[in-house]
Amino acid sequence: MKIESLVSCPDTKARAGQVHTDHGSINTPVFMPVGTAGSVKSLSPVDLIETGSQIILGNTYHLLLRPGMEIMESAGGLHKFMSWGGPILTDSGGYQVFSLGQLNKISEEGVVFQSRLDGSKHKLSPEISMDIQRVLGSDIVMAFDECTAYPATIQQAKTSMQLTHRWEKRSLNYFRSTEPLYGHQQQLFGIVQGSVYPELRKESARVLVDMGFDGYAIGGLSVGEPKEDMYGITDVVTEILPQDQPRYLMGVGKPEDLVEAVNLGVDMFDCVLPTRNARHGIMYTWDGPVSLKAAREKDAHIPLDSECGCYGCQNFTRAYMRHLFKANELLVYRLASIHNIHFYHELMSGMRKATLEGSFSTFKKDFYNRYNLKRAENHR
Amino acid sequence: MKIESLVSCPDTKARAGQVHTDHGSINTPVFMPVGTAGSVKSLSPVDLIETGSQIILGNTYHLLLRPGMEIMESAGGLHKFMSWGGPILTDSGGYQVFSLGQLNKISEEGVVFQSRLDGSKHKLSPEISMDIQRVLGSDIVMAFDECTAYPATIQQAKTSMQLTHRWEKRSLNYFRSTEPLYGHQQQLFGIVQGSVYPELRKESARVLVDMGFDGYAIGGLSVGEPKEDMYGITDVVTEILPQDQPRYLMGVGKPEDLVEAVNLGVDMFDCVLPTRNARHGIMYTWDGPVSLKAAREKDAHIPLDSECGCYGCQNFTRAYMRHLFKANELLVYRLASIHNIHFYHELMSGMRKATLEGSFSTFKKDFYNRYNLKRAENHR
Repeated sequence: MKIESLVSCPDTKARAGQVHTDHGSINTPVFMPVGTAGSVKSLSPVDLIETGSQIILGNTYHLLLRPGMEIMESAGGLHKFMSWGGPILTDSGGYQVFSLGQLNKISEEGVVFQSRLDGSKHKLSPEISMDIQRVLGSDIVMAFDECTAYPATIQQAKTSMQLTHRWEKRSLNYFRSTEPLYGHQQQLFGIVQGSVYPELRKESARVLVDMGFDGYAIGGLSVGEPKEDMYGITDVVTEILPQDQPRYLMGVGKPEDLVEAVNLGVDMFDCVLPTRNARHGIMYTWDGPVSLKAAREKDAHIPLDSECGCYGCQNFTRAYMRHLFKANELLVYRLASIHNIHFYHELMSGMRKATLEGSFSTFKKDFYNRYNLKRAENHR
Repeated sequence: MKIESLVSCPDTKARAGQVHTDHGSINTPVFMPVGTAGSVKSLSPVDLIETGSQIILGNTYHLLLRPGMEIMESAGGLHKFMSWGGPILTDSGGYQVFSLGQLNKISEEGVVFQSRLDGSKHKLSPEISMDIQRVLGSDIVMAFDECTAYPATIQQAKTSMQLTHRWEKRSLNYFRSTEPLYGHQQQLFGIVQGSVYPELRKESARVLVDMGFDGYAIGGLSVGEPKEDMYGITDVVTEILPQDQPRYLMGVGKPEDLVEAVNLGVDMFDCVLPTRNARHGIMYTWDGPVSLKAAREKDAHIPLDSECGCYGCQNFTRAYMRHLFKANELLVYRLASIHNIHFYHELMSGMRKATLEGSFSTFKKDFYNRYNLKRAENHR
């Protein structure tokens, strides 16, 4: 998979391009809202389109446990099941097994875990993960990896990385030996691991590039490491990844993380923060996050952000939204999610525009001049 | 307030007409979705319009306790607060004090009750209720009444009715002595009480009509009495109410109740059933209610109702909606509420069309031939 019409910023590593899938093209850099269980929480497909969503993410782990692959296959895949006509990326399920599942056993073969829903036993391996993602029918499939726990010693990180490499090779071989089920093409991305150790990360990037994936992800970051490690490792890895293929930083992040990572040459992102924070009343603005549950908002009969074009800001006041939060009215989870997802997309398209105009470093400076990071510290 | 362009069905008491307010005209018979706390649960104003909603209801009791009248007045009333440009009817708050509130004291003056939210003490009286509804700025204001408990002896019902009459007279006098706050006209409806006793109901209707309200409601039904009492009392009361003014049957009801009551000459309805049942997966169809949580729906990759034009039925399957219910995904509460509200409005517009064509009795027969009442018994 190539990143097309690629424009690189002259004085940073920021890139703007396009990725083509059978469900449509994606302008990069791009943020992918997370549709964990076949739904970007509280949002309909129309809402997603209206907020500017180009591609969404689905979680293999959640969909495997519920509704299960039998229903997913009889539905004709995830696009049809959830009535989303745009591109979908699915993860491999590995990360959630480690972070959410009751992991019973890990071996060269793969993992055995218990469902957190009903205690049932399930297996995941490179081959099973590929089969599942064929059934889901995602446009972009992720290789099966082990997300290295943080912190890890360099030896632990190396052992884990080497297992990941063997699993990714099996993912690739098995994926290449199977066919899509629904007539549209699927692409396979490899995942760079190696914890916070630059030498391991370089090795991992080189090994994966040699295998020849359709695109490359940076995994195992935003797991508790210092920000300088997150940015430093991203910098090291994007130096090695091919210029002409998409790069995806998994599970990242806050607005400032997106700005830093685009600055370092990342094209794709996903994160639950905008939707999860929305449900807790934490709203993103160009001035920083705002808590709509705060008492000071109770008679603020003004929009959350008068510059914002989202449905919420165009129609409702902070006072109304605060009231809805206080009354646990379902409408507000949707209005808040629309706003935050819209903000994330505006941020990405602002960075894309700046990159195309060759002014990314000015964009970044302007962002930090205005965005209140102190506020941001209070919200996660 | 007149009901305009009134067409009566030749062989039933069914009526079709129009009610004009400063926020728009309403085709009757009409169903009013309930927006208890300043939001029809899970639906936005755009959703309400797309489902065919012409007028919504707000609850004085809930809005008085949260966000409170200070915020409501600084917002400029309920229309602006919730960004709903169509007509609004508000109740008087009395019913909820009796059904939800911790009633401390009832006297000739009014009622004192404790907030179920924070234990704070509040008063309601005819005059206070009118003041509140002026602040809310509803297009249709309800007089302050006592909803007679069920069951009641004829003497209890009479005493309660007489108190209601004195409170309604005070409501009317005070309302006529005050002005709207926001420039648009407000209309005041009286409420007929008298429990299940036809003689009391007749007396109540006559007394209220003599007072001269802008429209008339039938209160104190759908509180546990047998269906034949609900229908019988409605029949008795609509015989007395003026032909040229709107009649509103409060808190009713199931689809079959709406058909029966339109047949008896009622123009307006409100009920939480379509939205509350939607949140529990009980969906209305022309064949009767369907539970989307049922196991048989798990691989039903067909719309809930292929004849239905709502956003949910046009885009999603029963299997997907069942999955969302099982996963507690917020999207489904909205999709289900859109469907049920849309169904209620389709039912009303079907009855309106039949009435205008002089074929209401055929409509009613067709409805009962198809609608499975047995199923309906399982859902409340």
